[in-house]
Amino acid sequence: MRTLIKNGLVVTASDELNADVLIDGETVAAIAATGSAVADGWTADTVLDATGLYVIPGGVDAHTHMELPFGGTAASDTFETGSRAAAWGGTTTIVDFAVQSVGKSLREGLDTWHAKAEGNCAIDYAFHMILADVTEDSLKEMDVLVGEGVTSFKLFMAYPGVFYSDDGKILRAMQRGAENGGLIMMHAENGIAIDVLVEQALAQGKTDPRYHGEVRKALLESEATYRAIQLARVAGAPLYVVHVSAAEAVAELTRARDMGLNVFGETCPQYLFCSTDDLARPDFEGAKYVCSTPLRPAEHQESLWRALRGDDLSVISTDHCPFCFVGQKELGRGDFSKIPNGMPGVENRMDLLHQAVVDGHISRRRWIELACATPARMFGLYPKKGTIAPGADADIVLYDPRGAYTMSAATHHMNVDYSAYEGRTVAGHSRTVLSRGRVIIDDGKYLGHAGDGRFTPRSTCQYLT
Amino acid sequence: MRTLIKNGLVVTASDELNADVLIDGETVAAIAATGSAVADGWTADTVLDATGLYVIPGGVDAHTHMELPFGGTAASDTFETGSRAAAWGGTTTIVDFAVQSVGKSLREGLDTWHAKAEGNCAIDYAFHMILADVTEDSLKEMDVLVGEGVTSFKLFMAYPGVFYSDDGKILRAMQRGAENGGLIMMHAENGIAIDVLVEQALAQGKTDPRYHGEVRKALLESEATYRAIQLARVAGAPLYVVHVSAAEAVAELTRARDMGLNVFGETCPQYLFCSTDDLARPDFEGAKYVCSTPLRPAEHQESLWRALRGDDLSVISTDHCPFCFVGQKELGRGDFSKIPNGMPGVENRMDLLHQAVVDGHISRRRWIELACATPARMFGLYPKKGTIAPGADADIVLYDPRGAYTMSAATHHMNVDYSAYEGRTVAGHSRTVLSRGRVIIDDGKYLGHAGDGRFTPRSTCQYLT
Amino acid sequence: MRTLIKNGLVVTASDELNADVLIDGETVAAIAATGSAVADGWTADTVLDATGLYVIPGGVDAHTHMELPFGGTAASDTFETGSRAAAWGGTTTIVDFAVQSVGKSLREGLDTWHAKAEGNCAIDYAFHMILADVTEDSLKEMDVLVGEGVTSFKLFMAYPGVFYSDDGKILRAMQRGAENGGLIMMHAENGIAIDVLVEQALAQGKTDPRYHGEVRKALLESEATYRAIQLARVAGAPLYVVHVSAAEAVAELTRARDMGLNVFGETCPQYLFCSTDDLARPDFEGAKYVCSTPLRPAEHQESLWRALRGDDLSVISTDHCPFCFVGQKELGRGDFSKIPNGMPGVENRMDLLHQAVVDGHISRRRWIELACATPARMFGLYPKKGTIAPGADADIVLYDPRGAYTMSAATHHMNVDYSAYEGRTVAGHSRTVLSRGRVIIDDGKYLGHAGDGRFTPRSTCQYLT
Amino acid sequence: MRTLIKNGLVVTASDELNADVLIDGETVAAIAATGSAVADGWTADTVLDATGLYVIPGGVDAHTHMELPFGGTAASDTFETGSRAAAWGGTTTIVDFAVQSVGKSLREGLDTWHAKAEGNCAIDYAFHMILADVTEDSLKEMDVLVGEGVTSFKLFMAYPGVFYSDDGKILRAMQRGAENGGLIMMHAENGIAIDVLVEQALAQGKTDPRYHGEVRKALLESEATYRAIQLARVAGAPLYVVHVSAAEAVAELTRARDMGLNVFGETCPQYLFCSTDDLARPDFEGAKYVCSTPLRPAEHQESLWRALRGDDLSVISTDHCPFCFVGQKELGRGDFSKIPNGMPGVENRMDLLHQAVVDGHISRRRWIELACATPARMFGLYPKKGTIAPGADADIVLYDPRGAYTMSAATHHMNVDYSAYEGRTVAGHSRTVLSRGRVIIDDGKYLGHAGDGRFTPRSTCQYLT
Repeated sequence: MRTLIKNGLVVTASDELNADVLIDGETVAAIAATGSAVADGWTADTVLDATGLYVIPGGVDAHTHMELPFGGTAASDTFETGSRAAAWGGTTTIVDFAVQSVGKSLREGLDTWHAKAEGNCAIDYAFHMILADVTEDSLKEMDVLVGEGVTSFKLFMAYPGVFYSDDGKILRAMQRGAENGGLIMMHAENGIAIDVLVEQALAQGKTDPRYHGEVRKALLESEATYRAIQLARVAGAPLYVVHVSAAEAVAELTRARDMGLNVFGETCPQYLFCSTDDLARPDFEGAKYVCSTPLRPAEHQESLWRALRGDDLSVISTDHCPFCFVGQKELGRGDFSKIPNGMPGVENRMDLLHQAVVDGHISRRRWIELACATPARMFGLYPKKGTIAPGADADIVLYDPRGAYTMSAATHHMNVDYSAYEGRTVAGHSRTVLSRGRVIIDDGKYLGHAGDGRFTPRSTCQYLT
Repeated sequence: MRTLIKNGLVVTASDELNADVLIDGETVAAIAATGSAVADGWTADTVLDATGLYVIPGGVDAHTHMELPFGGTAASDTFETGSRAAAWGGTTTIVDFAVQSVGKSLREGLDTWHAKAEGNCAIDYAFHMILADVTEDSLKEMDVLVGEGVTSFKLFMAYPGVFYSDDGKILRAMQRGAENGGLIMMHAENGIAIDVLVEQALAQGKTDPRYHGEVRKALLESEATYRAIQLARVAGAPLYVVHVSAAEAVAELTRARDMGLNVFGETCPQYLFCSTDDLARPDFEGAKYVCSTPLRPAEHQESLWRALRGDDLSVISTDHCPFCFVGQKELGRGDFSKIPNGMPGVENRMDLLHQAVVDGHISRRRWIELACATPARMFGLYPKKGTIAPGADADIVLYDPRGAYTMSAATHHMNVDYSAYEGRTVAGHSRTVLSRGRVIIDDGKYLGHAGDGRFTPRSTCQYLT
Repeated sequence: MRTLIKNGLVVTASDELNADVLIDGETVAAIAATGSAVADGWTADTVLDATGLYVIPGGVDAHTHMELPFGGTAASDTFETGSRAAAWGGTTTIVDFAVQSVGKSLREGLDTWHAKAEGNCAIDYAFHMILADVTEDSLKEMDVLVGEGVTSFKLFMAYPGVFYSDDGKILRAMQRGAENGGLIMMHAENGIAIDVLVEQALAQGKTDPRYHGEVRKALLESEATYRAIQLARVAGAPLYVVHVSAAEAVAELTRARDMGLNVFGETCPQYLFCSTDDLARPDFEGAKYVCSTPLRPAEHQESLWRALRGDDLSVISTDHCPFCFVGQKELGRGDFSKIPNGMPGVENRMDLLHQAVVDGHISRRRWIELACATPARMFGLYPKKGTIAPGADADIVLYDPRGAYTMSAATHHMNVDYSAYEGRTVAGHSRTVLSRGRVIIDDGKYLGHAGDGRFTPRSTCQYLT
Repeated sequence: MRTLIKNGLVVTASDELNADVLIDGETVAAIAATGSAVADGWTADTVLDATGLYVIPGGVDAHTHMELPFGGTAASDTFETGSRAAAWGGTTTIVDFAVQSVGKSLREGLDTWHAKAEGNCAIDYAFHMILADVTEDSLKEMDVLVGEGVTSFKLFMAYPGVFYSDDGKILRAMQRGAENGGLIMMHAENGIAIDVLVEQALAQGKTDPRYHGEVRKALLESEATYRAIQLARVAGAPLYVVHVSAAEAVAELTRARDMGLNVFGETCPQYLFCSTDDLARPDFEGAKYVCSTPLRPAEHQESLWRALRGDDLSVISTDHCPFCFVGQKELGRGDFSKIPNGMPGVENRMDLLHQAVVDGHISRRRWIELACATPARMFGLYPKKGTIAPGADADIVLYDPRGAYTMSAATHHMNVDYSAYEGRTVAGHSRTVLSRGRVIIDDGKYLGHAGDGRFTPRSTCQYLT
């Protein structure tokens, strides 16, 4: 079963080539210069004409929360709906977060998430593990999970009483990660201090969603970021900071990276395209934009873009964690602290970032690097995922850079009743999506099936120096 | 009752004058140029000839712990023995720390300390208050104490389970201080992380005193310093960081002060004159040098001196908290974490810092500024204390800059069985010491009495911009 | 001949005292607490009642250019008119710049300036020397001048073909200064690059005064500042940067001072109270605000104030160099590069800075430190000048902090036909001014004479560590 | 004419693939997974077995000086000998510097260099242009040269009287480059100040080669680096700093890049593998290590490696400029300033950097990025050069990572009588080298001819954001 993609512009993190791509089974067999004798000699069962299109690696979204229980409800996308929406948006791999419950083992949490995902996914998937309860036992389990391809572990400096770990637990987990190769991912906000400000705001009658942004101060993100970096230095461990949103936090990452430390940062499209202006929308509409770290004033975006260009931020993931406005976000009417934290976006990421290319924020190659290659390398999926190269999985998107459309909840495929980007027109979209050689999206039709996607064990982080 | 000090070189934080000082009762009445008609016209009941001597303000030691209960024992100097030793060393004011016990009120703690000190002190004294239990009640009591002249409050990021406050409590106390003028003083070490390292070190059989220095890492001091600064920014409060010892922590203070923040740092003579080499002394002798923050490798000292010259460190106090080697320090044989934390020094400070003048680290005026004027201003005692000026309390030292002697437990007046500076020769010493106009030390004789010293209420910090 | 100043608030760089000051002849004899027996016992030939007034040291303006030839004309204040205006403004010492001409000796230049000043000044004066021609001979002459009390030497990185020295000459002069104690003062702007931008602007028809501000870019000030600092490090010499105006240049000073280098910065009232908005005034009025370094956009002022508070800028001088609008500034109509560079201000400084106290930018003591004490120490005039202390010269101002008035060319005493602060009301003014014990200004009357002021040899910089 | 490289590990800046490479004529036609049906189906005229070898892009050395006249002599490698030595060392493209003479046109200089190179080179070559005389005419010629594929222009802040441009000329050239796309390359050392130190050193009898390192101070490199950056900011131009050697200069690049500026840095193997210890070799042997910027103390190397890992330094070139010890370096006996500046290295670079991979300083991909891909992109040669991809020139090296050998003048192919790395054993070497599809080196035999290499016009820098 061979598929040939002809006449496109192959764009990877490093190259832009006029080349034809030959797929044999689930992987890329060869790449040849378009019009060369060898390319012209190729035959295939299926020939896709990519004239005028980009041929890019399928997106790797390293931060999703399908079906995540949170605040008495659960994220509205299942692995089935969410992974299918990802495919529509040109993403062919997600790394979701299995959750350890307090008092339970990592194994139980991981098994639960395997059960949720297995047989339901449209695209390949992998897991990080949330460490909610660092104990001698869970530290030992980390080693086992690394062996099973779950090679990264998320800790929280926020959410006391839920996911929060104190600095001692963080230090122990980092030390263990330094030994077993597990990469520590950090939600870096000083949740203890934030909870004081939340309580004070509510006591003053400040209940609207916009106060979510005011109490979760940028200084408390940068503080936690710096603290996590110092703890990682003490532990001799690398560190990956998730969903960085504040310019001050970026500055701490820059400072660490200038010292040559193995410290990495991720941001998300919502921090690049939305702001506290959205959080302040009237009629409780701001609740749609409640996530943590919170959206920041628009002037922070310049720092994020600069850091993305200069690699002080290395990955753009979505932190996709959708809650419907009706019935879910509304839990927080009259008390912003009860609004489920999270925003939808797994379907929007590749197109928003392509728009950033059009707008001049990043180059075409950097788009692919941030959205495909680096997340794959960071989390041990490269070169199977994140690039187009002989031997790699044939997760490939034929992207139409002139296929403008307008984002809307009316047309998107995520299982959520609003779009954070409602009414925003973007310049391009994914026309054809292949997952391990099979066409699963083509020209507005979904051709795949729940269960096409496989669990993909990961090796360890490929960026450590 | 008039006293005249003639022919000395009056050295204050700002001036060096050949001047005669006329004392009337407890205060300085006038200063006149030596040899001027007006000076030569002065008569007095007592005339002290200061030819060849410096006439300096009595030292203000803003950080002492007389009789402090700690680790199942108590600091070996009482207010009587400790304040008398201070006087011998040229210090005429101490600011000691009253301690709130967990579950008890500030009032109870303060009353207890008043009872310890009253009627016992050789020199004037004041109190800071240690906030060990930040609650709604204790926050309200802060206001009352400020009104009573106890205008500074110490919090601990170290010592979990003892004095430790979490970041939420710290934030609340800072907010309150921002309102009532109380200055927050911070012991900035990440005690939660340190306790993990302590446990791990002991588990590995690392029980010697030198491991005290290894587990209390410089990065965990700088982390806490930065965190305290960020929390102070969130609270809109000033901050005073006590006993800074690590170059990395100094760097954080410098960064904050470059931003124009009201952040101040204190260091102590032990960090300037001792090092981890002392902590590593054999035969458990290192225990004599166990204090927290810990002594650092000698190369940190250059940063401290530079910061002292450039005012990124503003005060030199002693953190005087003596424990005898025999019977007290020995509690930690076989387990460094059980060694009582603290070192003696209230008697040594002025002479060690004069030695720093001789060695070229600081100027003569800066000596007085760091040891007398700035602590007085920082803690609301100026201009009563810390300078020689008309109207100021006549707390004055006639200092012999050529009066070299060798420090030793055999000759010092502190109630502790060792000297951290045993065998060290310094260039000068205090020959005559006046406390509010009375000569209490003269030429090797103590002429004062327990109870001479009075509680001195303080106004608020005079450095805020 | 004794003078007694009673009942005032004596404000120095370090103290605020309710004290009476007794002057005997030309110097301060004694200071006593107001109302004390000793003070009340004093008699004097003249008694000045300072009730409700500040008693402050006379101002020390370390940067004036009386009668300076520049651009085919000369500064419009002579030593007689300019020093008298200084006295009106509460300044009792000026340090003016003698100028070496290219091809001539320092001696000739200094003699010329001595001749200009001698017998003409209302107040004491001293000289810096402008090194316009660094040669083996002029380097040797530096040693001689230091011996004569001319202990500071100004070099220019701006003004190619006039005062400009290349980096090699600068390095040689710094090396010499490091040996003989002479302090190098630097006009830090990259004049070579600026001249290119000037030529280009004029070629584009950009001739208005505001282009003076645009071509003399902040980056070219910070560049030169950093370069001067590095050259000083290579030479092992201290450095004093004159008239710092750009936030970016301040940042370089901060960086250097954080490293503990002997680098000092001066700014001027015009950079604190005026901006490029003034340079852009219509009808060629912007020419009144042409000086170099140029005025900057108003947002730079915040950096300057912060640096003044934190001592990254240590001195406020005037760079007083007045040119009349009519006939002098007008030389540059149609070509901003021909506008004589300079602004009047020697009379305004003390009042503008007192206004800064009222506005909360600096404290009262810092006002005196920046305007009196530090310039005196920096340039070897302390403690004769810059403070009120027994033995010091009785250069004293009785300052009325509630004596508001409106600045205007119609009423000022400088020999220049405009005021840069026309119409600005300030809160206070100098009511009585004493120069070495003589009252030269009192309540709106000038009581002095040309020639009262004496040349004052200086010792070397007192700030070196 | 087809060539097939089978069974190797293809290593590019972004990928490591087990892949076969099919070359058709001068370019790469296709790449296929080793062992895939498509690869196994390929036939070719020549089949090279790369089992156990790396298949890497040929090196791109962006900084060579063949036949450069300097100090009364000329670099000892001709384009023939030097380019052949490059090929031996696995480098398949050099970018040499054509030189404008003062008073002459760029055209004359470029024509001269074309004449030197044409018909003589073993590998492809391109030219930068040294701007020694910035005038209105030469600025206009820059536009023409950009059109001819000479798209980068080197300026010197060092060598007054030879190549030196003052800051005004630099600014003008940068402005022109900002318009026409020409990239300014800068030799960043303050030559004016250095010349003073040279003169002083010689006057003190300091004539040995090691004084070359002492007078060319690190601070004067960082100063010039910062100055060049500021001038580039004023001009709105990108900047490429050549042969960075000092940690302090690296810090300035880091600062600039943290701000998001288009500032790039290059270093050379000699700064990574040699030090001032070499400059201090006895018997005038230090002269072999005289180049500018000079070698630094070994502790600078850590900063260089860190910057190379973190991309604050982006390129490693050789600055190959060989002078024989006998007869050439010896010109400076008794006067280090007369030693011709330059070191040989074009043949050693790829192997030294592979050694850095083995030593753990950089990753295998980063090796190729620094030595092949980035120089090609920086100077507009990508994707023809610097990578292995369909359509790219078939400049390919079969590299034996286990082919250890010992560097020596006795065996190297450069026309110079010493090796800077004499006796140093490196882990690997280039076994087979292809230039545009032809095998020119194979297993110790040179199979090419003078004139095989072609002049390669370049497009503009591909890194600008």
